[in-house]
Amino acid sequence: MQYRLEPLMRLASRFERLPGIGPKTARRLAYYVIHMPKEEVEGFARDMVVSRESIHECAICGSMTDAQNCYICDDSSRDKGIICVVADSRDVAAIENTLEFSGVYHVLNGTISPIDGIGPDDIRIDKLLSRIDEGNVREVILATNPDIKGEATAAYIARILKDKNVKVTRIAYGIPIGGDVEYTDQVTLSRALSGRREY
Amino acid sequence: MQYRLEPLMRLASRFERLPGIGPKTARRLAYYVIHMPKEEVEGFARDMVVSRESIHECAICGSMTDAQNCYICDDSSRDKGIICVVADSRDVAAIENTLEFSGVYHVLNGTISPIDGIGPDDIRIDKLLSRIDEGNVREVILATNPDIKGEATAAYIARILKDKNVKVTRIAYGIPIGGDVEYTDQVTLSRALSGRREY
Repeated sequence: MQYRLEPLMRLASRFERLPGIGPKTARRLAYYVIHMPKEEVEGFARDMVVSRESIHECAICGSMTDAQNCYICDDSSRDKGIICVVADSRDVAAIENTLEFSGVYHVLNGTISPIDGIGPDDIRIDKLLSRIDEGNVREVILATNPDIKGEATAAYIARILKDKNVKVTRIAYGIPIGGDVEYTDQVTLSRALSGRREY
Repeated sequence: MQYRLEPLMRLASRFERLPGIGPKTARRLAYYVIHMPKEEVEGFARDMVVSRESIHECAICGSMTDAQNCYICDDSSRDKGIICVVADSRDVAAIENTLEFSGVYHVLNGTISPIDGIGPDDIRIDKLLSRIDEGNVREVILATNPDIKGEATAAYIARILKDKNVKVTRIAYGIPIGGDVEYTDQVTLSRALSGRREY
């Protein structure tokens, strides 16, 4: 019967293009939407368009904002001398939720990944360099993921920052809180051991 | 940082209200949307509203359609004397895909479920009765799911159709094609045995 329900199938294929949503889930969501209250659907559609239109990268750090600069870059109480480098805007949100960091961020918007054709020039490394060249930066914390791409990106940035007069650090590797030594993979465990600190 | 990204958080909470989407997935989808091409987002939003507006229940069988009646009820080559009763519009699509059924459908839009406060009057049983009372119906196939609610609904309909001059059948239970006798649950296996046919 699908061929006569063109709008529904078109909506399902829209859902299917979102990450992690397969054809069955997409169809289920499309059916769900057409059973939702009309105002709810219109609100959803409006929020989608409004979000896309109003949110863009912060001119300084590259994180998502609906203002000129993001509120962190605009906040005079944040320490502009410490820049935490992350791959993605969502990482900023995660670190902010710890309430532990009072410096500022730099969002790369990606990681170096030769296999995907993403080189150092395709992510916001040049903008990081110009921020450092402006002076006043004392420390760059590399907070990319501890996976192949994240490590390659961190290593690359660490190398090009070698000549700059700035301290470069990497977030710690180790067993996550609530984790289990027995079930921790060997690589993490050996990193946790070599990174041990005095008690 | 969320509190400054109001539109994004609002969009995430819209996604979260969809079935099977948790807070993390919702946030991921919202971030994905704001990185999508503008026209893509606008098209998605438009398809959502158009689907909701143009698709409604077929006046006869209750399945989803964007016309007055669905194309199955409107099709003169379909046998109006056999009505296949299903719980949901999506079941119609599934049965249509078999290309094996040439009768018509009746969508209940739900199943009897006292625990959820859904009684026989809350699903489209009355409309099924009036279709049968109009005459010319020879057989009613009960194709609700073989679970507690589906069985209760089938049993209820079978009972109220007892006095009507109509054959009432139930879709077969058994081992699904590609299934494995060894790993089939006891209930299904005993149903498959009791429902055996001559070879």
